[in-house]
Amino acid sequence: MSIMWTVKVLGLGVVALSLSLELIGRLLRRLRPERTLNEVLFFPSEIACVEHIFTPSSPHSCFCLLPHDVETSFSRLLRRILSASSSLDLCVFAFSNMDMSRAIVALHSRGVTIRVISDKDYAAITGSQIGVLRKAGICVRCNVASVYMHHKFAVVDGRLLITGSLNWTLTAVQSNMENVLVTEEPDLVRPFIKEFHRIWEHNDPTQHRRSSDQRPARGTTRLETD
Amino acid sequence: MSIMWTVKVLGLGVVALSLSLELIGRLLRRLRPERTLNEVLFFPSEIACVEHIFTPSSPHSCFCLLPHDVETSFSRLLRRILSASSSLDLCVFAFSNMDMSRAIVALHSRGVTIRVISDKDYAAITGSQIGVLRKAGICVRCNVASVYMHHKFAVVDGRLLITGSLNWTLTAVQSNMENVLVTEEPDLVRPFIKEFHRIWEHNDPTQHRRSSDQRPARGTTRLETD
Repeated sequence: MSIMWTVKVLGLGVVALSLSLELIGRLLRRLRPERTLNEVLFFPSEIACVEHIFTPSSPHSCFCLLPHDVETSFSRLLRRILSASSSLDLCVFAFSNMDMSRAIVALHSRGVTIRVISDKDYAAITGSQIGVLRKAGICVRCNVASVYMHHKFAVVDGRLLITGSLNWTLTAVQSNMENVLVTEEPDLVRPFIKEFHRIWEHNDPTQHRRSSDQRPARGTTRLETD
Repeated sequence: MSIMWTVKVLGLGVVALSLSLELIGRLLRRLRPERTLNEVLFFPSEIACVEHIFTPSSPHSCFCLLPHDVETSFSRLLRRILSASSSLDLCVFAFSNMDMSRAIVALHSRGVTIRVISDKDYAAITGSQIGVLRKAGICVRCNVASVYMHHKFAVVDGRLLITGSLNWTLTAVQSNMENVLVTEEPDLVRPFIKEFHRIWEHNDPTQHRRSSDQRPARGTTRLETD
């Protein structure tokens, strides 16, 4: 009888132990936080051909003299931008980089919803890509206020934030010392989404047209079209 | 005998259960990720007196005409900077804001180790606070290369990153649309610490002096002192 009981107790112990281990394993898997994407890119970027990023189906189609198949800060940044599948909200002070403009137009032609906010003074200078975007049918709004719109951020698919010191210019990418931070951290992404919405609504040209219609005297409000 | 065994088994079960619960509780506490500080500040900041941030012991000592006891983006930024207890590494393109300069000098006089990297062209312009920092005995290095050092970041105590579009100027704080991101996320902080170290070492004036000594011909290397 006593041997039987010992066997039963040991059996019970083994079952309890295996159940506990299973339970702990499940808890561990559930509680381990999923790795949030956080990446920092520094510039100036090495100068290399980025044609393969635009034409991934034929990666060896370019015969230019720049180095090929080189992963650079700029190529990583371009990939992040081109990863957009539903929307891209861009709020950038200076935008004259033709590769970045090509990426935005490519996304637009793929059906990605693009909204761009830019600084009204910079948008008007020679080399600015804002006109190219507008010609492609992309919605662009420029800040109405007389202050600098000095942001340089983008939100991809409402979940990925790209922000930093880097204006979207060739000089910034190839010459300056700059940083770009790429993150999916919701506490960082959410405020930028909210701020984009605020600036976008604040610079709605239809609203400004209406308010200037109501004001017969010469106003200082600048009219911008989408 | 059988009753005794039943009591023993039940006792063993109770002990095993309580131990399991204790173990699971400990695991839960250890595995729950501590909330990492992530904050985003937007500018322009409301204009308000910041005297109470510098003199917290006598918060009502200022009689200036600006609004008092108002929490603004700028006051939050100043508090983050002044939270440094051991070190502050600052890498900023333009630095002319006198309140921010006062904060850095205050930290230096408290014994916090300060290192500043700035853009050599901007450091030389009227209104730059780089001279004030140097006069206070703070180590400042300017980038030797002919490119813009366009960063605007600081690392507090090797754990808190402050970065964004905001230069440390009055216009940026009070007029421009800017962002500042404050984070303790190690994956974001670590690359900035590494980049600061790289730029700091790269612009060591003693190294540049040595290399220019070796070069008898007129060089383009610019000498900077700490």
